[in-house]
Amino acid sequence: MEGKQERHKTKSIRCIVKLGGAAITCKNELEKINKESLDIVSSQLRQAMISGRSTPTKGPGMDWSKRHGESEVFCTEDDFGEDAFADSSRFVVVHGAGSFGHFQASKSGVHKGGLGQPLVKAGFVATRISVTSLNLEIVRALAREGIPSVGMSPFTCGWSTSERNIAAADLSMVAKAIDSGFIPVLHGDAVLDELQGCSILSGDVIIRHLAAQLKPEYVVFLTDVLGVYDRPPVEPTAVLLQEIVETTVAAHDTTGGMMTKITEAAMIARLGIDVYIVKAATSYSLRALNGELRGNIPDDWYGTVIRFVS
Amino acid sequence: MEGKQERHKTKSIRCIVKLGGAAITCKNELEKINKESLDIVSSQLRQAMISGRSTPTKGPGMDWSKRHGESEVFCTEDDFGEDAFADSSRFVVVHGAGSFGHFQASKSGVHKGGLGQPLVKAGFVATRISVTSLNLEIVRALAREGIPSVGMSPFTCGWSTSERNIAAADLSMVAKAIDSGFIPVLHGDAVLDELQGCSILSGDVIIRHLAAQLKPEYVVFLTDVLGVYDRPPVEPTAVLLQEIVETTVAAHDTTGGMMTKITEAAMIARLGIDVYIVKAATSYSLRALNGELRGNIPDDWYGTVIRFVS
Repeated sequence: MEGKQERHKTKSIRCIVKLGGAAITCKNELEKINKESLDIVSSQLRQAMISGRSTPTKGPGMDWSKRHGESEVFCTEDDFGEDAFADSSRFVVVHGAGSFGHFQASKSGVHKGGLGQPLVKAGFVATRISVTSLNLEIVRALAREGIPSVGMSPFTCGWSTSERNIAAADLSMVAKAIDSGFIPVLHGDAVLDELQGCSILSGDVIIRHLAAQLKPEYVVFLTDVLGVYDRPPVEPTAVLLQEIVETTVAAHDTTGGMMTKITEAAMIARLGIDVYIVKAATSYSLRALNGELRGNIPDDWYGTVIRFVS
Repeated sequence: MEGKQERHKTKSIRCIVKLGGAAITCKNELEKINKESLDIVSSQLRQAMISGRSTPTKGPGMDWSKRHGESEVFCTEDDFGEDAFADSSRFVVVHGAGSFGHFQASKSGVHKGGLGQPLVKAGFVATRISVTSLNLEIVRALAREGIPSVGMSPFTCGWSTSERNIAAADLSMVAKAIDSGFIPVLHGDAVLDELQGCSILSGDVIIRHLAAQLKPEYVVFLTDVLGVYDRPPVEPTAVLLQEIVETTVAAHDTTGGMMTKITEAAMIARLGIDVYIVKAATSYSLRALNGELRGNIPDDWYGTVIRFVS
């Protein structure tokens, strides 16, 4: 198994993308997808994956399932002349939960463990139903853009935690999917925990682990704000930080959700991987996904770059 | 890893159940679940899992997600007083595809391999979207009955084939889920194939592998006919075979779909495990799931038992 993983590591990953829960769902409405944002994000991902190729137009869709209120999708062999994703697609997508899963997890305390309690066990089941529902809809949105995406739940992959830190996370199946030309789509999930029975493995922690193991060229966090500010962005004097040099991260005054993200991002930057935190579904996110920011940050780009300076 | 699997094997599995695609979907209508049948099957599974316990009534649901056209599900800690599934639930569920996945797979030829062809790759993605949609709906139906079910896709588990036979199928995660008190729900899936790139791993082949590794007390195939007949059941003189002794199986004149099932069932019987093929959502299926048929087959039971006689 170890030998196989080594073999997979030799093939380079271009980009790991985090679709923030707040960017792709309506965070104040239970289990509602922000369809407009998700569609733009999917389109930008397709453009970024095939950048530099001769066929930038949208390919035939790969979701051939019925949809509520929509007509069926049909396909013919002629639609699939060329594989636009054959060589250039080496992306991994991870998404958060947003308004999916959080209600179920917090209501039952899945993150605190205790699977022996009936309410926690029920909450574990309910949380997984909710987050895998979202995963399926994101895979479908990507597939409709012609992106060969495959959903991969961390729980099912055998990922587990030990007091909420990753204890086991076999990447061999993720690597095989990439080597076969697919885009793995992982997500924050309820998982088994060696010490407390169960816990919640967040998308941000998954991203850090994937980055450490797969060593992508860059990592993009798509969020619902422009980037990282020097204070909570609701304050009128808040200033967007265009670049954070890794060693200064701890000094910034940031809010809870963003703090976790920055901590994880800083740990990725420490590996020598550029990290971009950028607002989803904007021209800035497209440039970040394209890898245009590598080396220099243009003045007309808004977002936050986290870099490591040794 | 080997040591862990050995440890898991020491805990006994009571029953592996196959929900036949034809029994839980409307086979002539694309992606339509047979909701009435699925609800009865889910209820019977709950009854079988907690048989002998003091709380045979339906427990609180574990699907707390919104449903199209239905009101939201709420729960309180008081609803979850006792864990009815704590000790007695050691079941594994595997379902077929029915009217999900078959269209996508046959349209693109996923079963014949060739992932380098864009149509096959698209079909692989489309097939997985369809079968995981069905898996999610079955997990939800079971959860609504209070069964702590967790969806586990074979592709994501890292299962793969070699010219359509199982090449790799790590059961450690399935075993861990069972040991944590969950009911794993697997399904026929599009998987990677070592020689031809990709293929379809059928639910019946999964069942045989699970039975060989987990050694359940008995295996139940829920189908849309009463059992195995001596000729195609549409013929007026067809006779239901109540018992098949393993060595005679090859002599029976059976139709395509049923032939695969009987071959797989015979290979399970050869392991010394009783196999029942029975019509879903009937009093006969409930008795089979309950394990009432072990040792003797009552005269008023209709179905087919496949046993090994050495």
